[in-house]
Amino acid sequence: MKRSLGPRALLYPAPVVVVGTYDAAGRANVMTAAWAGVCCSRPPCVSVSIRRSRHSYEAIVRRQAFTLCVASTEHVAQVDYFGLASGASEDKFATSGLTPVRADTVDAPYVAEFPIALECRLREAIDLGVHTQFIGEVLDFKADESVLGPAGLPDIEKVRPLLYAPGQETYYEVGPALARALGVGKGSCAPGNAPTTR
Amino acid sequence: MKRSLGPRALLYPAPVVVVGTYDAAGRANVMTAAWAGVCCSRPPCVSVSIRRSRHSYEAIVRRQAFTLCVASTEHVAQVDYFGLASGASEDKFATSGLTPVRADTVDAPYVAEFPIALECRLREAIDLGVHTQFIGEVLDFKADESVLGPAGLPDIEKVRPLLYAPGQETYYEVGPALARALGVGKGSCAPGNAPTTR
Repeated sequence: MKRSLGPRALLYPAPVVVVGTYDAAGRANVMTAAWAGVCCSRPPCVSVSIRRSRHSYEAIVRRQAFTLCVASTEHVAQVDYFGLASGASEDKFATSGLTPVRADTVDAPYVAEFPIALECRLREAIDLGVHTQFIGEVLDFKADESVLGPAGLPDIEKVRPLLYAPGQETYYEVGPALARALGVGKGSCAPGNAPTTR
Repeated sequence: MKRSLGPRALLYPAPVVVVGTYDAAGRANVMTAAWAGVCCSRPPCVSVSIRRSRHSYEAIVRRQAFTLCVASTEHVAQVDYFGLASGASEDKFATSGLTPVRADTVDAPYVAEFPIALECRLREAIDLGVHTQFIGEVLDFKADESVLGPAGLPDIEKVRPLLYAPGQETYYEVGPALARALGVGKGSCAPGNAPTTR
């Protein structure tokens, strides 16, 4: 039996991304966000939603650029700190001991120690309410050699990204592989009703 | 050392959502998507990106509504099937044996057997390329009593949602809890540099 909980912004799980920007003074800054995801395959686009009050907001608008990094579980404390502190009052790179690297294709920095970085040119800024959704076109995707699988793409078991459980304010790890996508469902229909592929 | 992989739409992990609609003939339909997420806390908004060729595309535009369901791992085969088949040619509810329920607040159905359903009124449709991003305002959030935690909100360990590893085309489970968000980072800074809370 379902219970109505009213209008709520909860989806399970949320990703955890670290947004990299240069502020008005040219300082590298990072903040953590969970309202993010892929939104187009071609051209490749990703979105991240940020409150207007955040120091990163103006930086994205000014530079028309940002990066999204995916961190590994070993950096969970730094990732959480990047969401707690403000770049307006402190240098989060210096405090955390992590290293900013200037992106090759856009005017924004990424975190050297995190295994994945997406370099994004701002394409849309959609004011939705307390959050503005920034859509960026991914001009380059970079990954540490150490997290690549045999096909030359990242292996999620090597990346070991964080997940976020909204409402519980808890980070989780990725668990075991469950099934092949675009595969396991081929045998899922009722007998005599073979699903067709798209 | 980071390797450039060129422009790519990959983030880890992606969520797995099931989009519910009524088509032009009034038939309940569902499709699976991974390019989705929360995009605003207040008013609560979520986004899901869909190709123009999908049967669900026109249904969302016509009815100005959709639902997003979060399924549990036990339904992975049905979820995958919902992404493989098209509602233009088959009745996915009948084939899967799952049950459509009319939403209370919008003109769209959700899946009774899945533990979480978000009822969404279409707010924006943003044509980005091969995908159009639909942003919906969540008018009601429903959850099975059985997945609620002590605070009356869903517990991700009871929901047991699927994750999607893009590029690998593999579903994963949620792993163990790692740390408290907005907590573990308070002790992460270098000695003498206490991070401030926002």
